[in-house]
Amino acid sequence: MRDLLVSAAFELFTEYGYDGTTIDDIVHRAGVGRRSFFRYFPTKEEVVFPDHERALAEMIGFLEEGAQDPDPVGRACAAARLVMRMYAEKAEFSVKRYALTRKVPALKTHETSVVRRYERALASYLRRRFATLQDGDLRACTIAASVVAAHNYGLRAWLSSGAGGDASIVVDQALDLVHRTWGDKAETMIMVARTDTPAWQIIQQLDTLREGGTGYRFA
Amino acid sequence: MRDLLVSAAFELFTEYGYDGTTIDDIVHRAGVGRRSFFRYFPTKEEVVFPDHERALAEMIGFLEEGAQDPDPVGRACAAARLVMRMYAEKAEFSVKRYALTRKVPALKTHETSVVRRYERALASYLRRRFATLQDGDLRACTIAASVVAAHNYGLRAWLSSGAGGDASIVVDQALDLVHRTWGDKAETMIMVARTDTPAWQIIQQLDTLREGGTGYRFA
Repeated sequence: MRDLLVSAAFELFTEYGYDGTTIDDIVHRAGVGRRSFFRYFPTKEEVVFPDHERALAEMIGFLEEGAQDPDPVGRACAAARLVMRMYAEKAEFSVKRYALTRKVPALKTHETSVVRRYERALASYLRRRFATLQDGDLRACTIAASVVAAHNYGLRAWLSSGAGGDASIVVDQALDLVHRTWGDKAETMIMVARTDTPAWQIIQQLDTLREGGTGYRFA
Repeated sequence: MRDLLVSAAFELFTEYGYDGTTIDDIVHRAGVGRRSFFRYFPTKEEVVFPDHERALAEMIGFLEEGAQDPDPVGRACAAARLVMRMYAEKAEFSVKRYALTRKVPALKTHETSVVRRYERALASYLRRRFATLQDGDLRACTIAASVVAAHNYGLRAWLSSGAGGDASIVVDQALDLVHRTWGDKAETMIMVARTDTPAWQIIQQLDTLREGGTGYRFA
């Protein structure tokens, strides 16, 4: 029933435009009553984005499971991939919607508000993970914005090419920049040793250094 | 006349709420005709954000002048400061507006669209500056989003504290994180020399190394 309403709506949007189609037109085409429409979609905008609520719930669940993930920025990037996957699952529908959203300001506005909700979910996860950092809140906000911007950049590139290739490749490349830039960075370490130092001693020394032991560490 | 309309509007918004005030009410209170209102403000939303067009034009001009700036990320951060300054110039008005915008969804939507325009101006500058980088477009989008997120984080902190302290301190601290993270990073260099090496030779060696000459450079 839900899918029926979505495809009826998109047929009509293509024929008569978004503004030229009423909810009555949609339920008439789908052969159901008005109340069925409102059972699934609170507004006409929602029928254009039928899967965001599910994706958002999935994202939140995935982030909650990652409360101990040693790499919070990586987790946030992986959470953003869930949104990409939702688009990729219905590539043809996503391309049609992309064209429609670019033309209709009300849909653009609705989409912006959905994006903000993803961003807030990511920021709220990162805020919890960075609770002990002095600039944790700022960092959480800024990284969440970076993740969303990079994800959307990759997704747009894929959609505007007609969703030809593999969405995950372009989106992963984009997210990788954010991960490398904001993730924990390794430091440079220098070890000075005599040529006759036994290997086990060098390894022991390296471990001490890695764990922040004696030795010089350069940020 | 313009300022008169803005203050009449804010008086009425405080007394009757945003939705409870019409454009007719505003022109009546200001003692001018309807046409005067529309000469300055295309919509009722615009009277709430009377200075954004000016700030946006200033930002674009500042970015255009920075076409040769050796530090594009720093330039983008400095451009964002112009927006903060616009808020700080009228601190009391900014705090009132902040409270109003949080309550009225139509204003929130309008503000989001203004923020997107700042972000696009920053991205478009960075895109030009990163034209030779393979991932220049992605980098431009993502850094612009980071700058805007950090700027807004600082601005919100200042506004929600009642605009008590110096806006530029909190906003600069926030932007500094973005600048440090996305700006050009120095590499670590290691020089090995005998204790009897003359100083001039060490300096010469350092210069060669800095310019990418022979020697080990660690990213």
